[in-house]
This record gives sequence, C-alpha cells and structure tokens, in this order.
Amino acid sequence: MPFESLDGFLTPADRFYVRTHFATPVLNADTWKLEIAGAVKTPLHLTFDDLLKLPSRTAAVTLECAGNGRQLLEQKVKGVQWTLGAVGTAEWTGVPLATVLDQAGVGQDAVDVVFEGADRGEPGTDPKPRGLIPFVRGLPVAKALRPEVLLAYKMNGKPLTAPHGYPVRALVGGWYGMAAVKWLTRVVVTDRTFRGYGESIDYAIWDRRYGPPSLSPVTEIEVKASIARPMAGETVPAGKDVRVHGAAWAGGADITKVEVSTDAGANWATARLVGQAVPFAWRLWEYDWKSPPAGRYTLMARASDSRGRVQPMLRDLDRRGYMINHVVPTPVEAKA
Amino acid sequence: MPFESLDGFLTPADRFYVRTHFATPVLNADTWKLEIAGAVKTPLHLTFDDLLKLPSRTAAVTLECAGNGRQLLEQKVKGVQWTLGAVGTAEWTGVPLATVLDQAGVGQDAVDVVFEGADRGEPGTDPKPRGLIPFVRGLPVAKALRPEVLLAYKMNGKPLTAPHGYPVRALVGGWYGMAAVKWLTRVVVTDRTFRGYGESIDYAIWDRRYGPPSLSPVTEIEVKASIARPMAGETVPAGKDVRVHGAAWAGGADITKVEVSTDAGANWATARLVGQAVPFAWRLWEYDWKSPPAGRYTLMARASDSRGRVQPMLRDLDRRGYMINHVVPTPVEAKA
Repeated sequence: MPFESLDGFLTPADRFYVRTHFATPVLNADTWKLEIAGAVKTPLHLTFDDLLKLPSRTAAVTLECAGNGRQLLEQKVKGVQWTLGAVGTAEWTGVPLATVLDQAGVGQDAVDVVFEGADRGEPGTDPKPRGLIPFVRGLPVAKALRPEVLLAYKMNGKPLTAPHGYPVRALVGGWYGMAAVKWLTRVVVTDRTFRGYGESIDYAIWDRRYGPPSLSPVTEIEVKASIARPMAGETVPAGKDVRVHGAAWAGGADITKVEVSTDAGANWATARLVGQAVPFAWRLWEYDWKSPPAGRYTLMARASDSRGRVQPMLRDLDRRGYMINHVVPTPVEAKA
Repeated sequence: MPFESLDGFLTPADRFYVRTHFATPVLNADTWKLEIAGAVKTPLHLTFDDLLKLPSRTAAVTLECAGNGRQLLEQKVKGVQWTLGAVGTAEWTGVPLATVLDQAGVGQDAVDVVFEGADRGEPGTDPKPRGLIPFVRGLPVAKALRPEVLLAYKMNGKPLTAPHGYPVRALVGGWYGMAAVKWLTRVVVTDRTFRGYGESIDYAIWDRRYGPPSLSPVTEIEVKASIARPMAGETVPAGKDVRVHGAAWAGGADITKVEVSTDAGANWATARLVGQAVPFAWRLWEYDWKSPPAGRYTLMARASDSRGRVQPMLRDLDRRGYMINHVVPTPVEAKA
C-alpha cells in the first residue's frame, strides 16, 4: 500500500500489503485440511466446514511486516526494501486457535505452537536447511491460547484472497506479520523450544538483556506513528492550513499520544487521535499545521503508548532489518 | 593432536587439541573473579581462593570439538578443517557448578545457564551481532546442575595452561567442547531461552523432529570410534599380524561394542575394549588383524553404545559442520 493513500480505518484487501516468502500455493477450501499435531492428547484433522461450524470472532487487527520501513534505514540491510506501506488494518473473521487447541488437548509439556503454511521454497541466506521447506512460524503456548490469535478465513467480510492466505491464515494480534502464517495447513505443538528459519535467521534480533547477545525471535509490534500526508518530497501551499495525518499503532498496547514536529524534532505539538481505541488495531490521527510560511520543513511524528513506550529517535542496530520504529523525517516544501 | 599418536587413556595437555574463537586473554589467578549473575537469589563474586576452598572433584572426561572430522566431509563446510584429532581425554579437577549455583540460589524461573569467557572478538559469519562479543555458551539448568559440570582449574593434576583456559574453564561432561568455555569469568542464569551466536549461528544443527527444521544447539556427544593406527595411507607388513587400535566415545553413554572391518564394511569383527568404562570418558580398543595378504584394504571402525546408538555409515547433512560421527574409511596397503 502506498501509505499516502491512507483514507480510513480499514485497508481494502486489494491495497493491503502482501509479503510472501515462497510462491503462492493454489489451495481449494473443499479439499483443504488443517492438521493439529505434536504434543496434544488428540491430533485433529479439520476440514474447512469443520472450521466454519465453530464459533467465530470478528476483529479489526493491524498487521505490520517486521521489515516495514527498511528502505529508510541509513545502513542498508538485506530483505524486501519496504518504505512505509507494509502495514494495514482489516476486519478479520475466524475461529480462536484456543478453541481448536482445547479440542485437541494441549499437553503439560507443550512449549511452542508452530504454524506451517502450504508454501514451500528454499530460504535466501545461510545458514539454511537443505532442500525445500515450508514457511513456518512459532509462538509460545501462552500467546497461542489468547483470544487475539485466530484461524482467520475472512478479511473485511469476504473470503481471503489467494495472496492473503486463502482459505485460512493464522492471525496473531499484537505481533508482527511473520506470525500470521498464510495458507495454513498444519499446527504443531512442540515439547521443546522451536527455532525455525523464520525465527532464527530471518525475523530474529539480538537481545542483550543478559549482556552477551542472544538471537531472539521478533514478536510484538513496537510503538510507531507514520505520516501519510504530506508525504516525503510533497509541496504544500504556503500560508494555508495543512492537514498532517497518519496512523499510529503499538501492537497489544493502546496509543496514548501522537506528537508532530514541523522543525525536525526541535518542537512538538500534540495531534488529535481520531475515533476510539480498538485493541490490536491502529489509531488514525491528524494535526492542523497552521499556515506555514514558504520554506522547507522537516515533519516528524512520534507516538506514545499505554505501556509507557515512546517511539525512539534513533535506530537500534541490534534489531537488524526488523522492528523499524524510530522517528523518520519527512521533508516537505511550502510554496506560495 | 595427531590422532595416530594415541598411546594411552589420558592425553597430555601439550598434545590436547586447542580450539579458540578469539585471541587468548591474559588472566591472573590472583586478580581473577567469577561473577554469578542473573536469575539467582544472591549474585556472587568468587575469587580463585574462594573456589579452591570449595570441595573439588577429579574426573577423567573426554572433550571432542563439535567440528572434529570436518576435513573428511565430502561436501565441504565452513569452519576449522579438523581431521581426527580434535578430541582428547584429561583428568580434570574442579568444583561442581551445582555447588556454586546452590550458594547463589537458582530461581524458579531459571531456564538456561550461560558461561561467558574473557575472550572477545567479532564472529566470522552473518548474521552476527555488531561489535565485539565474548565467547558464550549456555546449557539448560537441569544439565548445569549435574555433577559432571565443573568449574575446572586443573588438567592432569596441573594448573590449566593459558590455551586450555587458565585459570578456570567450564567442563561439561558428555557434551561437545563448545560448552567447556575457557577463561570463564561470568555465569549468567537466564529466565528465558538463551541463543547466543555460539548456539544459533555456530554450533547449531537443523532438527526435523517436528517436520520443518528447527535450529537447535549442538549438545551431547554422539557415539563414535576412530582408528589411530594404521592411519590413512599407511603401509603395513603383509603376512604379519597388525594391531588396529583407537578410541571410542559416546558422551554420557558407555561404549558397548566396537567393530572393525578390513573390507570397507562388507564384514565386521568385534574389537577388544581395553580397561574399564569410565563415565564421560573414551574407551580404548584394539583388534588383531590376522596376517593380511599383500594388497589394498579399507579399514573401518564402528561403535555402539549403552543407549542403543550405532555409529551411522552416512553423514546427516542437517548437522551442518558439526557432530561428525559417520564411519570413515581408512585406506591402507599391506606390502611384503
């Protein structure tokens, strides 16, 4: 999605960002099955009809790619060179994973729950396992059992399209998009820590809480505001009020404040938060920039959240190419 | 150690293999301190004298580098190109780590125990953390509390030499050498899974027990026999009895059988195990090859252990450059 096209709370499916790791598989809901395997009392095989018969939830949830904003990093890193638009909010309908895991009966020794997609391919960088592997992503059992984790089959009231994971994808509210595994065909409950390619080589950061760095999977979405308009390089009319607007999100936390600077961070003013807070979804915001005189400006937006997190001004290099939430300058010009 | 020089149960320190990751640090026992930190009730700082006052254990333990045999792999992999000699057995004296952890009081939430050495450097391959890092290696709390895990300060009755970790190194009986961190200065008890560079990028293998590969730290030593003599390419006297001998080891398991083939694995005969089984140490073995006629031969040795493991004939590529224990052919010639 070109982020400057942001014009409402929900993002249409055809403008919603698509990140795939391997070629999109061709699946059919009539023949699709979901296997629940591993450290469970009763392994299950569910059909699409089985899933439709279970109680569903519908919730607006924001998905952000863990590499969103990568193109803006000063030190270039590997991966898809996203600018701002690898984020979107849709209304998702699905069955809580907990419902299905309860049916299967999660063992006492369960550690992680791993989502496996039908897409297969060879990962890009070493060290990598030999041969083709499915895209997989795990999360701790405690998170997997939370109500914001869905087996989703509708997006904005319509069946998922192929690029968005038809017929069923995982949805992990509050986490970056890599956990929302598309074309879901298998859920494995493990009895020891699972570190697939997508949580060790890809989608992992260096965590220094113990001193020496530990490679830790990317999980929860950081606090972040992005400016939709004016966009970088845009010319605005000098002497007229300019609407600065965008979205802000913080994973499982609520946005409490968005501040805007028009002078590269020297001064900050508080923006208006639009509408109500929706758990796990972004919050639109807007700010009236009062009749700027002709000249060049650097706009910035900075979000704070209900966990006390404030968007940082500087990039943390231990995050490699992921979790990019530092404040980004937006150069604009006001012209008469 | 040139493995063909194997001539007894214990390996002298000056012939014992040395694998360092970064430059050898210059430490002094008089000023050395060991910090016990992290998820413990009472963080500790121990001097060398403090350590000497605690009850010690002395045990013969075999250390094998996880990359021992790498040079023999048909598909070349990164890392030090060891042939057979990155293995040895010494009598180690030290304080059980459990004694010190009990003093500190390990919390209920403890997950891993991480050894940190005084050596620092930049890891070789991506993905890697920025800057200099110490060599670190962790193990689960349950293993860390076992009696075969020592804070070792003597090797074969003498103080450790600098290349072997003076003044104190970790010793983890039954595990590959990467866990026996040298120049030990810090032990951190973590409250979540620790995956340093040396247990994710280095010293990790692809484990497919759940289907999709999971990057798992190298831990326990596999079952393996190596032939010391005749060595590859050696000429032996035709028509005379030839002593084939070597060592076999299996981490925490006992060697139950060593078989020798002189015809590239078509037929196998049982070798004699020398002496008694010593827990966590190798077992020497020998076989009388009865007066071979002149010709070319391919010798092989194959070990079995008390866990029912048998040394495999083929290499498992998921092990990357580690845990190399498949049967290796030793070409020799008998000449009149």
